[in-house]
Amino acid sequence: MSESPPDSTPHSEVGVARQPSRLNIEDLSPSLSAGRYPVKRIVGALVEVSANIFKEGHEQLAARILYRPANERRWRQAPLFYEYNPDRWFGRFRADQLGRWQYTVEAWTDHFGTWRRDLNSRLEVGQNVSLELLEGALLLEQAARRLKGETAERILGAARQLADTQKSLDFRLAAAFSEDILHTVSAPLLEEEVTRYTPVHELVVDRERAGFAAWYELFPRSQSQRRSVHGTFADVIRRLPELAALGFDVVYLPPIHPIGHSHRKGKNNATVCEPGDVGSPWAIGSELGGHTAIHPELGTLEDFRHLVRTAGDLGLEIALDYALQFSPDHPWTKEHPEWFFIRPDGSIRHAENPPKKYEDIVPPNLWCSERKALWNACKDVFEFWIEQGVRTFRVDNPHTKPFPFWEWIIREVQRDHPDVIFLSEAFTRPIRMRALAKLGFTQSYSYFTWKNHKRELREYLTELTTTEMSEYYRPNFFTNTPDILHEYLQRGGRPAFRIRLLLAATLSPVYGIYSGFELCENQPRHPGSEEYLDSEKYEIRTRNWDAPGNIKHDIARLNRIRRENPALHSFSNLTFLETNNHEVLAYRKVSPGNQLMVVVNLDPHRRHDAHLHLPLSELGLSEDEAFDVEDLLSGERYRWRGATNFVRLDPSERVGHLFRLAHPR
Amino acid sequence: MSESPPDSTPHSEVGVARQPSRLNIEDLSPSLSAGRYPVKRIVGALVEVSANIFKEGHEQLAARILYRPANERRWRQAPLFYEYNPDRWFGRFRADQLGRWQYTVEAWTDHFGTWRRDLNSRLEVGQNVSLELLEGALLLEQAARRLKGETAERILGAARQLADTQKSLDFRLAAAFSEDILHTVSAPLLEEEVTRYTPVHELVVDRERAGFAAWYELFPRSQSQRRSVHGTFADVIRRLPELAALGFDVVYLPPIHPIGHSHRKGKNNATVCEPGDVGSPWAIGSELGGHTAIHPELGTLEDFRHLVRTAGDLGLEIALDYALQFSPDHPWTKEHPEWFFIRPDGSIRHAENPPKKYEDIVPPNLWCSERKALWNACKDVFEFWIEQGVRTFRVDNPHTKPFPFWEWIIREVQRDHPDVIFLSEAFTRPIRMRALAKLGFTQSYSYFTWKNHKRELREYLTELTTTEMSEYYRPNFFTNTPDILHEYLQRGGRPAFRIRLLLAATLSPVYGIYSGFELCENQPRHPGSEEYLDSEKYEIRTRNWDAPGNIKHDIARLNRIRRENPALHSFSNLTFLETNNHEVLAYRKVSPGNQLMVVVNLDPHRRHDAHLHLPLSELGLSEDEAFDVEDLLSGERYRWRGATNFVRLDPSERVGHLFRLAHPR
Repeated sequence: MSESPPDSTPHSEVGVARQPSRLNIEDLSPSLSAGRYPVKRIVGALVEVSANIFKEGHEQLAARILYRPANERRWRQAPLFYEYNPDRWFGRFRADQLGRWQYTVEAWTDHFGTWRRDLNSRLEVGQNVSLELLEGALLLEQAARRLKGETAERILGAARQLADTQKSLDFRLAAAFSEDILHTVSAPLLEEEVTRYTPVHELVVDRERAGFAAWYELFPRSQSQRRSVHGTFADVIRRLPELAALGFDVVYLPPIHPIGHSHRKGKNNATVCEPGDVGSPWAIGSELGGHTAIHPELGTLEDFRHLVRTAGDLGLEIALDYALQFSPDHPWTKEHPEWFFIRPDGSIRHAENPPKKYEDIVPPNLWCSERKALWNACKDVFEFWIEQGVRTFRVDNPHTKPFPFWEWIIREVQRDHPDVIFLSEAFTRPIRMRALAKLGFTQSYSYFTWKNHKRELREYLTELTTTEMSEYYRPNFFTNTPDILHEYLQRGGRPAFRIRLLLAATLSPVYGIYSGFELCENQPRHPGSEEYLDSEKYEIRTRNWDAPGNIKHDIARLNRIRRENPALHSFSNLTFLETNNHEVLAYRKVSPGNQLMVVVNLDPHRRHDAHLHLPLSELGLSEDEAFDVEDLLSGERYRWRGATNFVRLDPSERVGHLFRLAHPR
Repeated sequence: MSESPPDSTPHSEVGVARQPSRLNIEDLSPSLSAGRYPVKRIVGALVEVSANIFKEGHEQLAARILYRPANERRWRQAPLFYEYNPDRWFGRFRADQLGRWQYTVEAWTDHFGTWRRDLNSRLEVGQNVSLELLEGALLLEQAARRLKGETAERILGAARQLADTQKSLDFRLAAAFSEDILHTVSAPLLEEEVTRYTPVHELVVDRERAGFAAWYELFPRSQSQRRSVHGTFADVIRRLPELAALGFDVVYLPPIHPIGHSHRKGKNNATVCEPGDVGSPWAIGSELGGHTAIHPELGTLEDFRHLVRTAGDLGLEIALDYALQFSPDHPWTKEHPEWFFIRPDGSIRHAENPPKKYEDIVPPNLWCSERKALWNACKDVFEFWIEQGVRTFRVDNPHTKPFPFWEWIIREVQRDHPDVIFLSEAFTRPIRMRALAKLGFTQSYSYFTWKNHKRELREYLTELTTTEMSEYYRPNFFTNTPDILHEYLQRGGRPAFRIRLLLAATLSPVYGIYSGFELCENQPRHPGSEEYLDSEKYEIRTRNWDAPGNIKHDIARLNRIRRENPALHSFSNLTFLETNNHEVLAYRKVSPGNQLMVVVNLDPHRRHDAHLHLPLSELGLSEDEAFDVEDLLSGERYRWRGATNFVRLDPSERVGHLFRLAHPR
């Protein structure tokens, strides 16, 4: 069994140039899983593209980026160049609109440019070039055949000039070295000589708030200021001005739908509820409606729309929870039992993780035979809330639903609504969390909550900011959630809350707090638990938002600093600085004209001193030069000199510095 | 424009599971460019395979490797398991025959295993499992439908046993927990529930000598012992016993074909030759024949076959040069001018790199319109010499010919002759050298010759042994070639030759010398040149192979040590050791039961002392334990203790130690 030499060239299928291929294009960047998944950017970003482009021998190559919004037919073009290594080519394009984009690169041999370069080398050593001039004329004639009208005539004229042995060498060479001629014929001579990289890669371009936002999570039913009275959307509206003043961008609400009665959970997750218990909002659906209905005690759909509008007027955005789980009372369980798991006795299977049972909810069967209808119904839920003005969804436990389902539904929703943001609330193993981010989630919860020591923070942030993850994983650094009150907060008192706030707000451009954090609430259900005592998940909690010891001043100040300093708007512009104290973490955030250095005492209990080592050359400073830094948290200014500077942080007074270099180079 | 939910799942094309996909398979290893290029192994190797395999939720998965020689239809299977991380699966298979192999992995949900695990959890806490038993029975009934005859009956029987409410719980559970039942139904229940990774990956399995061999390069015409008399194959045959005794495995001959007359190069690459000048053997072809002819002064085809047979009897193998370049006198230039570049005046273009001209050779036009015939003719050259018993080819300057041509021709030749070895003689930029190795060359020349300082050697060897390159790039560490006499050898005298020999022979399992090296020949054509004075490329050189100062004792000893120590048969089992002297390089080579440590003084001019730091725990030694090492070069034994040991190396006496740990753990 033998194969003939190919008419074109040996075939190739993935990650390489399409056929016929007379040169190689490999290692395209950016690229995830050989183009299987899109990389992510924020609108307006310059997308830096590079690739290995090479062939045998010494000929000159030319190459360009092809790119387009996915819904356009015509490719846009941007040039590729090499720098010192002729095999690695670089270029860039601006992603100036939301949505999915495509890009690839193509390359070809620059025959005329090669000929001209070689001609020049020959002339420099005085070789006879009469044959070369004829060959140049042939190249131009070939090029002219692809061109039309006046342009073709002009190139043909140059060919004749090159070939005219009656004329002087200088006259003939003028045609060879005309920049206009070179420019006109530098495009590929023959379509089939162009090598295009396949597969075409994808890019998802999100709006600014996908990459920079401060989130605040609250339970609407807890927003009444009257004890044990069920809060309403009107109560939430009353809180919005304060949240806007604190500098938040997104207000995220747990599910706002009717709550089931069957097996409703009682206070502190009791398996049997007491009369009057309000139940978990994640047990979605009752005879009053399902995922597109509103819990009547919160208000009406019109009230909700009013909330969304009022928030918008204040520069705030309402994010909803999207939880694909169902109370046994949810209308779909009656209307579409085929969308659920039916047991041999005809009952619908409730959620469980054997031997644990979650009888207040039932999961959908997303691979059921009626899955087309089910998936479309799930999509319609998104469409419904988008219709009400919602553009951000926090998706509950996506790792318990099929990954292909999410890939499909996110692509579908974003096709018509490229401004929609999906936050993945998957707390699971790393590979699955990364997979959800890769397949399309705009943002992802992270392990930040559990990274409290210096080495942990450095390792985790280094992974997030310096590996391939930075192409697709946008973490949302929540300091706490209704499910996670970390021991560090339980034991560290107010300083611990201030420390974690400073870290979250400066390490990640997207961060959030769950309400109560600003009051330093830190009572676990029991020792060793990360659950809150008297958790809002199961009951109404009213609070005095101005209670003594609150850290709202910190929050407002940090959110203002974040808005004013572009270095805090990006994620991977992070580098760690060395200190000689393992409780003192220091890092640098840099953007053009904005140099920040953050120093944090990670120990909420004790004062720590440290020598901070600055990379002077990277800061543009010489060894003996004085320079000014301003602590944006306190307003104090310091004059420093040299690479090593002393800091002292007493957490009872201040937990860290956020220095800005006064005159950044 | 909207898409319906897929009947199966969202499509995917590369680097991921084929459809329909209910679970994810990603990041298959080993993998080069998403499967575009094959990885390489030596026959008999265990191929370690791993992949990320995961889906939503908590179900148990099962997975296996599929693998087969590329010419077999039926997949072989090997199991995959996970260790601590349930999302990363590992397995292995043995590549027990030469040639191209294919492999991929597939995975599915283990429904019955999941059900059994959950049943067990429920039983442990005393839950009622009556519905679960009926569900288990349904799973077994489904499985039985896929099975036949007695097996199907047995599974149906178990299903009935599980479902039989008249029987005791214990009796029914016996069917649930039967290992035989589990084993029988653990294969995927439904074909469409199996997810298979695509694209199928390839593996090239080479014979042992592709991965472990000592090469010796000689010019046959220089092998006569009579001054200026043209050597013959008979002269080469007379040298074979000595080369066998020195421990070489491969004897590589520059081209043995008729040499052209037109523009023949004179001594020392003079552009005009003198009468009697023999010319460069790389100017292939004359009226006496081309690539399948033998230069008459060397002998006949039968003489050559005799040489190949005699070498074989001595355990030696003859490697030929494959140089796709043509003297203007080559028969193909007359028979097939269409295979060359024709100039406007009808002449054939000679080789050049403007303004340099190489008028004694013409390159083929491998993209000419008659390329099918040309490529086949090029392949026939290989086939001709394979017919004569040759199985190893050193390919001259492959980076000047189209890469797709090499990919095609290597695959074609190896399809019928999987034992053929191709060595790429590309000294060019890194990306192109790597590309040639990726597309199929068995071995590659390397930058080793130019890496003489400690940091250079560490950096280069670290790249070769610890990056993706170790999957496809097998360097052949030549100490010198007819084109490369490095300044280090020119200036370092005999110690320099001994140092480079020790490095080449112990750093790489495949290494070589070009004859004259053993005599420490070190005269460049002129200062600053890497060319030899009076190079054999252009004239006959007779030598006294026993001249004083020769290092044949070193060569014989090192080649024996190499054969006796398995640690020197692998490449990426290298780790560097720390010394406190930047002229003293130390490294470790390890294989089961064989622990070697090499210490080399890189300075040929001066004695150096160093403290060598040993990684005791990796050696299986405690801090205060005495251990014996034997210097395999000198036979001396030393008793050492602790992590730091002193070495003194005077290059006029010895250039290095090659220690073997006496009792490796």
